[in-house]
Amino acid sequence: MIVPIQTFTFAENDPLVLESGLTLSPVNLAYETWGELNADKNNAILICHALTGSAHAAGYHSEDDKTPGWWDDCIGPGKAFDTDKFFVICSNVIGGCYGSSGPTEINPETGKAYGLNFPVITIGDMVRAQVKLIDHLGIDKLVCVAGGSMGGMQVLEWAAHHAERIHAAIPIATTSQHSPMEIAFGEVGRQAIYADPAWNKGDYHESGTGPDAGLAVARMVGHITYLSEESMHQKFGRRLHNLEKYGYEFETEFEVESYLRYNGSKFTQRFDANSYLYITKAMDYFDLTQPSGTLAASFAQSTGLRYLVVSFTSDWLYPSYHSKELVRALTAVGADVTYLDIESQWGHDAFLLEVETMTGLLQSFLGRLEKEILAGTK
Amino acid sequence: MIVPIQTFTFAENDPLVLESGLTLSPVNLAYETWGELNADKNNAILICHALTGSAHAAGYHSEDDKTPGWWDDCIGPGKAFDTDKFFVICSNVIGGCYGSSGPTEINPETGKAYGLNFPVITIGDMVRAQVKLIDHLGIDKLVCVAGGSMGGMQVLEWAAHHAERIHAAIPIATTSQHSPMEIAFGEVGRQAIYADPAWNKGDYHESGTGPDAGLAVARMVGHITYLSEESMHQKFGRRLHNLEKYGYEFETEFEVESYLRYNGSKFTQRFDANSYLYITKAMDYFDLTQPSGTLAASFAQSTGLRYLVVSFTSDWLYPSYHSKELVRALTAVGADVTYLDIESQWGHDAFLLEVETMTGLLQSFLGRLEKEILAGTK
Repeated sequence: MIVPIQTFTFAENDPLVLESGLTLSPVNLAYETWGELNADKNNAILICHALTGSAHAAGYHSEDDKTPGWWDDCIGPGKAFDTDKFFVICSNVIGGCYGSSGPTEINPETGKAYGLNFPVITIGDMVRAQVKLIDHLGIDKLVCVAGGSMGGMQVLEWAAHHAERIHAAIPIATTSQHSPMEIAFGEVGRQAIYADPAWNKGDYHESGTGPDAGLAVARMVGHITYLSEESMHQKFGRRLHNLEKYGYEFETEFEVESYLRYNGSKFTQRFDANSYLYITKAMDYFDLTQPSGTLAASFAQSTGLRYLVVSFTSDWLYPSYHSKELVRALTAVGADVTYLDIESQWGHDAFLLEVETMTGLLQSFLGRLEKEILAGTK
Repeated sequence: MIVPIQTFTFAENDPLVLESGLTLSPVNLAYETWGELNADKNNAILICHALTGSAHAAGYHSEDDKTPGWWDDCIGPGKAFDTDKFFVICSNVIGGCYGSSGPTEINPETGKAYGLNFPVITIGDMVRAQVKLIDHLGIDKLVCVAGGSMGGMQVLEWAAHHAERIHAAIPIATTSQHSPMEIAFGEVGRQAIYADPAWNKGDYHESGTGPDAGLAVARMVGHITYLSEESMHQKFGRRLHNLEKYGYEFETEFEVESYLRYNGSKFTQRFDANSYLYITKAMDYFDLTQPSGTLAASFAQSTGLRYLVVSFTSDWLYPSYHSKELVRALTAVGADVTYLDIESQWGHDAFLLEVETMTGLLQSFLGRLEKEILAGTK
C-alpha cells in the first residue's frame, strides 16, 4: 500500500486566527488518505496523531520504504479502520515538522525558518486547521475522529467544539485536561532542549546543527513515561547490554540504558526540537474544563455523538482515572458512551500495541456506525 | 542545637579496596553526631542519607544558619531518634560532595580535583567506609541503622553484610534491588549532565563553571519522581504562576514549571554534577538478590536482627511492592519484621514529611530496642 503525502494550503489571504490572538498565513497541512471517499462523501474517518507522529499513519511511502505508518496495524483493508469501507484521513498537526506549517517552515516575511517566531499554537488551533481540510475535501460530516494520547485530545476538541461535523469520537489513552504531572514532564523535556547551547533560543536552522543532545534527553524522559514498570521489568529487567558484569564506568551498562540512548539518538534524526517545544506546550494548555470550569459544560452541545473511550490499566502517563472522569462528564450530559479500561501491561504505549483487543473493539463500534450512517448511501 | 562537621580519615597507608577492584587512599568521611555516646558505647544509631543529602541530618551549623539538617524533624531531644537517649551519627557518603572523599576532592596523585578519575563506588563501598567510622568511634554494635531512599539501601547493605555490627535495621521507602525504571530515571539524569558541554567529560572543576544547566534538568526529573500525582494536584494543580491567563510563550507559566525551575536552579548551587553521576550509578548497581540470585540468601546471616520496614502508598519511585518483597524475603528466613505501608499522598517525599506517623512508629520500635539493649547499661 503505497501512499503519497499531499499538501493542502489555505489562509493565504484570510489568515488563520489562533487562540493566542496571533495569526498564521498561509497554513500548510500535509495529509495522507487511505481507501476511497464514496459519492455521498459520508464514509470518512479522521485519525489524529500523537506528539511525535505524522500524517503517515499507514502504508509505505515507496517500494523501498521499510517502515510502515505509525498505526499500520489498525488501518488497512480488513483492519480495525477498514479501508475497504472507510476513507481514512490523517494530517500532520500545525506546529509539527512533517510538512505542515511549523517552526521549521520558511517564514514568508523573513525568508528564513520561523524558529521561535512561529506563533504558539493550541490543540484547538490544530483542530481548526483540520476542519479546513475536511471542508476542502468536501466532507460535511465525518463518521468519526479517532486518536490516542495527544491524538485523543484532538478527538475531544472535535467533540467539544465541532460536534456538528462528526458522528462519533474515539479518544484513546488520553485526558481532557493536562495534569500537573503531565505538564511537569513536558516542562522537563523543554528544559532539556533549552539547556542545550546549540538550541540558541530556537535559532539553529541555518547553523547545520541543532540541539540534538537536549532533544535526545527530552525523548528519553518521554520514553520512560510511555512504558510501565511491569513492561520495563519484562523488556529489560536488570540485564546488562553486551556485558557479563558491571563495568564500573559511565558507559552504557544496562539494557534499559541502551534502549534509552538508542531511542534518544534516533529521535534526533527525525524530529525538530522547536516542534517538540510547540507541541508539548499545546498539550500543556489543553483543558476542556475551561472556560466554564466543568467538563460537562464543554460537552453540552455534543450529547448527540457516540463515544468510544479507551484507557489502559498500566498507563501511568494518562491514567485510567482521566478517562473515567471524562466518561462521568459525558454520561452526565446524556451522551452515548462505550468505555473500556483495557487490562494491559504495556503502559501508555499500549494504544499502539494492544492491536487484537483494539481491533475487536473498534470493529464492533465502527460496525454499529456503519449500519446507522452508511446504510443505503452510495 | 549547633553541630560541628567532623572528619575521619583512614586508609592512608592501607587503601580501601572497592567492589570494582580499584582502591581509594586516603578516605575522608565527614560526619556529625548528636547526643552523647554512653560509657558502654551501646546507644549509637547510624542515620544514612539519600542521594543529595549530607552528614548534616539535624541541628544548625552556626547561630546564623537558617536551615536545619535534612531530618531535623526526627532527630533531637524527645524526637523519634531521641538524642536524650541515643548517640546519633550521620556521615556523608563517599562519592558525595559534602566533605567525604568524592570527585570534587583533590586527587593526591595529581594535585587536582579527581573528577572522573575518582573510582566508581557502590552502596557496599559507602557502607564499608561507615563501618570504619564506627570502628574509629569505638562502637562494637549499633542499636540500629536507619534511612530513607538511598539511605534505606545502605541500611539493607548493613543488614545483609554487617549484621554482627547492628541490632536492628530501619529501611524506609527503599528497595533491595534498583528496578529498570529506577535505573532509567538515573540514566536520564546522567544523560542530562553528559549533554551539557560545560560538563567536559567531568573535567570542569578548574574552569569556574560546571554543567549547571544539565544538573538542573537532572534535578527536575528527580523532583517529579519524588512527588505523587495527588500531591502535584494539591500543590500546583493547573494554577498559573504570577499570570492571569496563558502567555502563549516559552516562559514559566504554570506553578509546577516555576517549582521545577526554581528547585533545579537552586540545586546547582549546592551539589556537584560528578557526585550526582557517581551516586546515581551506585544506586543503579544496588542489587541484594546478587550473587546468589535470591534476596533471602543475602539475608541468611541476618535473621537475628529486628527490622522495621516502612513504605508509603503513593510512592511510585520506590513503590510499596519493593518493601513487600523485602518483607517476604526477611520473613522467609525467620527474621523479626515489623512492616507498615503508610497511607500518604506525598509520594516518595513522604519519608521526610509524614513526621507524626513516623515518630510514633519509630518511638515504639526504638522503645522496644531500648528496653532490650540499654537496660542496665551505663
